Amino acid sequence: MSLLVVGSVALDDVEAPGGKVEGVLGGAACYFSVAASYLTKVAAVGVVGDDFPTEHLEFLASRGIDISGIYTAAGSTFRWGGRYHESMNDRDTLFTDLGVFETFNPDLPDSHRDPRYVFLANIHPSIQRRVLEQTRAPQFSAMDTMNFWIEGTNDELRQTLSQVNGLVINDEEARQLTEENNLVSAAHAIRDLGPHTVIIKRGEHGALLFDEHGIFSAPAFPLRHVKDPTGAGDSFAGGFMGAIAKHDQVTPEVLRSAVISGSVMASFCVEDFSLDRFRSLRADEVDERFEAFRKLTRF
Amino acid sequence: MSLLVVGSVALDDVEAPGGKVEGVLGGAACYFSVAASYLTKVAAVGVVGDDFPTEHLEFLASRGIDISGIYTAAGSTFRWGGRYHESMNDRDTLFTDLGVFETFNPDLPDSHRDPRYVFLANIHPSIQRRVLEQTRAPQFSAMDTMNFWIEGTNDELRQTLSQVNGLVINDEEARQLTEENNLVSAAHAIRDLGPHTVIIKRGEHGALLFDEHGIFSAPAFPLRHVKDPTGAGDSFAGGFMGAIAKHDQVTPEVLRSAVISGSVMASFCVEDFSLDRFRSLRADEVDERFEAFRKLTRF
Repeated sequence: MSLLVVGSVALDDVEAPGGKVEGVLGGAACYFSVAASYLTKVAAVGVVGDDFPTEHLEFLASRGIDISGIYTAAGSTFRWGGRYHESMNDRDTLFTDLGVFETFNPDLPDSHRDPRYVFLANIHPSIQRRVLEQTRAPQFSAMDTMNFWIEGTNDELRQTLSQVNGLVINDEEARQLTEENNLVSAAHAIRDLGPHTVIIKRGEHGALLFDEHGIFSAPAFPLRHVKDPTGAGDSFAGGFMGAIAKHDQVTPEVLRSAVISGSVMASFCVEDFSLDRFRSLRADEVDERFEAFRKLTRF
Repeated sequence: MSLLVVGSVALDDVEAPGGKVEGVLGGAACYFSVAASYLTKVAAVGVVGDDFPTEHLEFLASRGIDISGIYTAAGSTFRWGGRYHESMNDRDTLFTDLGVFETFNPDLPDSHRDPRYVFLANIHPSIQRRVLEQTRAPQFSAMDTMNFWIEGTNDELRQTLSQVNGLVINDEEARQLTEENNLVSAAHAIRDLGPHTVIIKRGEHGALLFDEHGIFSAPAFPLRHVKDPTGAGDSFAGGFMGAIAKHDQVTPEVLRSAVISGSVMASFCVEDFSLDRFRSLRADEVDERFEAFRKLTRF
């Protein structure tokens, strides 16, 4: 197995200046795996309730994603509702109904225990660690987290961080985790906690990669129309890990190129609600935007 | 004459988390011309009061800057006081005493009327236009502005904008000027007002260049220690215009490279209070940081 992701599968309600959708496909594992599917073979592990529309699983499968690790439990699928403000940089969470996700703590099937690359999306850090410990020596493992775990389960989070190779985190969370306001200092502090590779996502301002070879700065793609930022960070992570898996090596060059692949997938994600942009997105459009990133940054 | 800048010469009081200074050298024309002096021959036009310390003029002259256009008027030098917050992104203006700057409306000496490149720093748009009209056919002219002029002298600002080739403006001002929240849309709207080249400064997030060839995104240099952001935008403009004057052509390649030169000079500016970093900055350090920008963005 090339790439494994563990995380949420959700049904989202989203309000944004450009429209409103209800009960649409969401969740970190979905955004991640669909974005990664343009680059590599990916397997998703998650849970859905018995209310989850079959068509969503069919869509994931149509992207070549191994969904055998997404199991159905009695109860409701995780539901999240959010509203974006005019600037698109701020959002209010309107509700979070965990449903069957509340007790999510997967036992990996044996077929899923040998991934070369593993991504632990934003879930309880102890569950992240338990999943990681079920895999046998992946080449590169990375994780995401959020303010809720930084505040509530800091010790467990630090324990998990000490076991992964990479952290993909947004700027505010990096500051909160390290109590460092400066992002360079924050990244150094995170590297001291374990991960040799740290990626700080800055939304419309792009992403910074910190590793033992220095710093790489990638812009976000300047888009004239952003419809729905939901899932951009998870799509970024999917593009990033997907590109690493595609190259099947973790060199400084591959990491930089992978950050651009992540930025490419995030830029498509926000062009429509839910995962809708990926329903029509072609491989040649992905390649084209990667080249557009070269043109955007070359001097 | 290669490059001409018209703007403020000031004495600043600055409070920041790392310290506090009083009555130090400041003003857009000073930051601009000192930054540009690393790249080209620059002349500054401005006014100081009879209280202005001679040592500051000597410092400017020591950088090879033509200060014959900085005249002394009876009264006080423009004084500005500001306080930065912990994040360094926000500041409060504590006071603005215009002094002799209030009636600044220079007649260019004949020796200053043939610059190949002109920069109109942030002053009343009608005075910017009057200065521009005193120059004979510069190759490339650009300007800055601020919220005060956007709100109070919008018609005059639009008239001046219709006569310059470039606008260097920060993100919030670009949004305010165009009433477009999206920066790509804002840049398009500004280009419709006249300037074919638009640079949107985003502070610690870098700068975007928009011209007829597309978009170029430059990061800010990731610094671990920022002491005083005052003058970063003016130093950026000085590096940008200085690099254009150095290459003495306005091609898409030169504009991109010039944005990096601007980012280099801004990155040094913020490393110390006032213009103090420039007092010790060597040309080889400037070249080295330009190369560091390549390493920072290459993939």
